[in-house]
Amino acid sequence: MSSILVVGSLGYDTITTPLGRREKILGGSANYFSLAASLFSPVRIVGVVGEDYKPEDLALLESRSVDTTGLQKVSGKTFFWEGRYEGDMNEAITVETRLNVFENFKPQLPDSFKASEFVFLANIDPELQMDVLTQLKSKVFVGADTMNFWISSKRDQLEKLISKVDVLLINEGECRQLTKSSNTIQAVKTLTDMGVGAVVVKRGEYGFMLYSDEQFFMLPAFPVAEVIDPTGAGDTFAGGFFGYLASLKSKPNFDQLKAACVYGCLLASFTVQDFGVAGVARVSQSELKARLDRYAKMVSGLPKV
Amino acid sequence: MSSILVVGSLGYDTITTPLGRREKILGGSANYFSLAASLFSPVRIVGVVGEDYKPEDLALLESRSVDTTGLQKVSGKTFFWEGRYEGDMNEAITVETRLNVFENFKPQLPDSFKASEFVFLANIDPELQMDVLTQLKSKVFVGADTMNFWISSKRDQLEKLISKVDVLLINEGECRQLTKSSNTIQAVKTLTDMGVGAVVVKRGEYGFMLYSDEQFFMLPAFPVAEVIDPTGAGDTFAGGFFGYLASLKSKPNFDQLKAACVYGCLLASFTVQDFGVAGVARVSQSELKARLDRYAKMVSGLPKV
Repeated sequence: MSSILVVGSLGYDTITTPLGRREKILGGSANYFSLAASLFSPVRIVGVVGEDYKPEDLALLESRSVDTTGLQKVSGKTFFWEGRYEGDMNEAITVETRLNVFENFKPQLPDSFKASEFVFLANIDPELQMDVLTQLKSKVFVGADTMNFWISSKRDQLEKLISKVDVLLINEGECRQLTKSSNTIQAVKTLTDMGVGAVVVKRGEYGFMLYSDEQFFMLPAFPVAEVIDPTGAGDTFAGGFFGYLASLKSKPNFDQLKAACVYGCLLASFTVQDFGVAGVARVSQSELKARLDRYAKMVSGLPKV
Repeated sequence: MSSILVVGSLGYDTITTPLGRREKILGGSANYFSLAASLFSPVRIVGVVGEDYKPEDLALLESRSVDTTGLQKVSGKTFFWEGRYEGDMNEAITVETRLNVFENFKPQLPDSFKASEFVFLANIDPELQMDVLTQLKSKVFVGADTMNFWISSKRDQLEKLISKVDVLLINEGECRQLTKSSNTIQAVKTLTDMGVGAVVVKRGEYGFMLYSDEQFFMLPAFPVAEVIDPTGAGDTFAGGFFGYLASLKSKPNFDQLKAACVYGCLLASFTVQDFGVAGVARVSQSELKARLDRYAKMVSGLPKV
């Protein structure tokens, strides 16, 4: 089992959905990712927090054996985001973002992390993502996420990064924006033409689409009748995806990427069933397996050719 | 093999999409349905056309052994619809609707059709759909479609109809509108509580969701990189769905409904690859089987529990 290194945000979120409101709860891509990935593999986290970061929030990661050597604690306040969801909750409306200590974040891998073979570069400045790549010594499989802000403001740097990673995990809307295509099938083909090995399109309640080596794999999300808070679903997906792949130790083949997508998708369905990280923080291996069993019945049963 | 009876529209459409424009081409729910269903089962069609309905358009149905005894030809012009699609083409923008002879359409089943066991009531006034139900003598499995117009204007009649049919096939947006829910999982449960046996939600490029007996089955659509014209995809789905079920002769179980959804979904992917009915009119059984084979690879391969 290899360790999986994640570089991303740790923060506090204030979230309002049709089902309630929570103030300054634990969030950030690296937290969602780590809680999901640690169900499968040891996790190494690189990020920055401020003086207000609560000891119990660090303890949560350590209780999952996440290696926090790469966590910088600096003076100032932790990253803060406030968002709300309406209607079908497919998209967050940002109310406020305070970068705080995240504004001057420069990821610095501890020596003990430089030989990480599996790496996930969560949604941060593509120049910083590239900088992490250059610090790595023996990478086997590297993935990245991004967002509309970087697509508009740093397209060149982002395209360069994409040509260097093995997999891009991206929201459907951002996938179309990045490729200037209104058709997701065309969009994923364009992305592999740009040099990325594989693309995973995250489609919210519609699940995911994996494309690599001219092969598709796609399934809908596990059905959740009461979506309480979709925040972090994409990062949870990435955590399940990479955590599973790291447990295999070698560069994944297409069948293994398929299985990784399914684990990512199922873990994300736990995240949306509670506010913040609560859903993914409490799911056990046996609950995940039970959900996989139920899910398999919902997506299997094609007529025989 | 049982016959499948369809009651719906026959018409001419003018369609503009980002990939072109076609004027007054053959359309209407009953035409799309019949061309799809006739790949599996004999079809009986009930509808109305005007004096301008072209002989070759009737001949197309007859070449597929569709029984046109129930087609009324009356004085006046055939139903006409003009629509256009933009962007991701998930929704048609209606430019013009001329009901013409459809305005006074009263479905009248020929005696030879009254013993039809499999019946699809395409999207028409729910009072007319109910009237057809009362004319039937030995029905086994009846389905209906509807649209936003009837949900707003004839909700009571529509709810009564829903409680009397075995399956409702409905667009996702209309499913949510009908149940006043922003969550499709809740919506399908609400619909079965209203008395319908099964619900098939049509989700465009995201495929379908089947719900019946507290069981789900859902898959994405077959990936099409160049959607030329999505008109009629839903009616093609219904045609594949019912055509397959009618070929089984008895009331379907859940596994058979699953297979029917897959055939409907795959046939719809042929429809969107050309303007109007051209795509579904030329697909052969062997092309359908080849696509099923490719599709199976794209949606199969879950990790073993």
